[in-house]
Amino acid sequence: MLVSGRRRLLTALLQAQKWPFQPSRDMRLVQFQAPDLVGPHLGLETGNGGGVINLNAFDPTLPKTMTQFLEQGEATLSVARRALAAQLPVLPRSEVTFLAPVTRPDKVVCVGMNYADHCKEQNVPVPKEPIIFSKFASSIVGPYDEVVLPPESQEVDWEAELAVVIGKKGKHIKATDAMAHVAGFTVAHDVSARDWQMRRNGKQWLLGKTFDTFCPLGPALVTKDSVADPHNLKICCRVNGEVVQSSNTNQMVFKTEDLIAWVSQFVTFYPGDVILTGTPPGVGVFRKPPVFLKKGDEVQCEIEELGVIINKVV
Amino acid sequence: MLVSGRRRLLTALLQAQKWPFQPSRDMRLVQFQAPDLVGPHLGLETGNGGGVINLNAFDPTLPKTMTQFLEQGEATLSVARRALAAQLPVLPRSEVTFLAPVTRPDKVVCVGMNYADHCKEQNVPVPKEPIIFSKFASSIVGPYDEVVLPPESQEVDWEAELAVVIGKKGKHIKATDAMAHVAGFTVAHDVSARDWQMRRNGKQWLLGKTFDTFCPLGPALVTKDSVADPHNLKICCRVNGEVVQSSNTNQMVFKTEDLIAWVSQFVTFYPGDVILTGTPPGVGVFRKPPVFLKKGDEVQCEIEELGVIINKVV
Repeated sequence: MLVSGRRRLLTALLQAQKWPFQPSRDMRLVQFQAPDLVGPHLGLETGNGGGVINLNAFDPTLPKTMTQFLEQGEATLSVARRALAAQLPVLPRSEVTFLAPVTRPDKVVCVGMNYADHCKEQNVPVPKEPIIFSKFASSIVGPYDEVVLPPESQEVDWEAELAVVIGKKGKHIKATDAMAHVAGFTVAHDVSARDWQMRRNGKQWLLGKTFDTFCPLGPALVTKDSVADPHNLKICCRVNGEVVQSSNTNQMVFKTEDLIAWVSQFVTFYPGDVILTGTPPGVGVFRKPPVFLKKGDEVQCEIEELGVIINKVV
Repeated sequence: MLVSGRRRLLTALLQAQKWPFQPSRDMRLVQFQAPDLVGPHLGLETGNGGGVINLNAFDPTLPKTMTQFLEQGEATLSVARRALAAQLPVLPRSEVTFLAPVTRPDKVVCVGMNYADHCKEQNVPVPKEPIIFSKFASSIVGPYDEVVLPPESQEVDWEAELAVVIGKKGKHIKATDAMAHVAGFTVAHDVSARDWQMRRNGKQWLLGKTFDTFCPLGPALVTKDSVADPHNLKICCRVNGEVVQSSNTNQMVFKTEDLIAWVSQFVTFYPGDVILTGTPPGVGVFRKPPVFLKKGDEVQCEIEELGVIINKVV
């Protein structure tokens, strides 16, 4: 807390002095493409909303996917730290395409009804145990990609969520050890087709949650040591500029540590696995009357310190 | 049908003549390990229960994982066909460890209540639409690996199933085109913790289905052209030698083509994706009184033409 307090003080001082742009020393890992590069690359976002340092150019021995990068653990992270400390060329944001910070993980674990107020808005008790469902990895898209409204659903809804990215393999992880298995955090949009989630498919939520493009992620995997407190971050969702969800991750019923301990009773976590930790109140389906996404809408999901993802509905 | 009829006639003639062992010309792709090889390799099982031809030794440019092999489509399949026609050394079965024929696919799609009789035994109507749930890829183990009874469940049950392996990427695939997207078939055991599936986790089936080791697969991916009719295969499950499930894939409510068409409305299929097509009647939970697996049990799931997987419960 002391270190984080000092960091905040420094940031405040820098802002107060109106010094010229200082790239953040936070580590914000991204996957990106650029016109003169072949295939996806690993990079560092130079602060929330900044340009991108090409990590693969800095060290050509680094892997080009985040999952492989995370599998190598401290070895690759220390290279990224050296890159952050060096004075490297920064690609302007306008020249890169941001991909999801993790693609094709072994699993996307999702948590239902994990904000007390979100339970209240749907008139159900706060769960005594986490409720776990999933999306297929094929639903993941980049932070500024389009969400495709499927003709099969008439009730597509928004859900801004904090996502945890696993950095270290583990099974039967204790809550007290859980943070050692976390690489960092990112912003997720758990797009949900309510008709399929709630009334079709034998009430198994999977199909309503896993249409292609239903899991925008990004823009960066912000490493855990770069986040002051993942359970005290403002989280909000805006549809066409209007705030529809506004809460704080301190409202989560089961925190990151509890979720990792719970789910790892069942499954082994692997580097790159993603956990969507649930959404605060304000979703469309529980409004009176209900509101759903339509073509042309723009959804912004934003979490303090992590960034904002912006997805047009087409 | 004519070709398949001829092949059967030839097989019958060979058997009638009691010729010395003739390796089948069927293509049975496997992933395996051997003491003198580093890491997983791709191979060909020389007939149901036969030894293994090392495909990576035959052509060192071939990928070493099934998913990558399938991604390359006809190019790699034609290499495998040449290997099958050549007189190559065969590793005795005792010298290899069979892995699941597919590991870490993008998705494991599962179908609930897809045998009419299985619906009857649980007193529910035959579904009008397929009911889709999933397992995480981390639950996949090899055809002769152990199934670990988790201390968190008291009601672990068996389910023999026909598994479809996808060979070609696709979305919104028509039923009439679906077989072009199938690489082949294998045997699956959809191990199920009934307490977690039916009474816990907000009745979302995922957790009860996805404990580590709950998805034995194998022994081989039998290519579709090597299977006379995937919807007319005897399927059975034996626990400690006693037949507990005995049916035929002709009893499936939704066939392979329908399932691919249905699921691809929602998601893009990728090479290596696995579909578990549901189980016939005879599971433990609906017996009177119910029967569950216990340590030391041996479960055999067998499908005609495809093979048998044998998993000890520990």
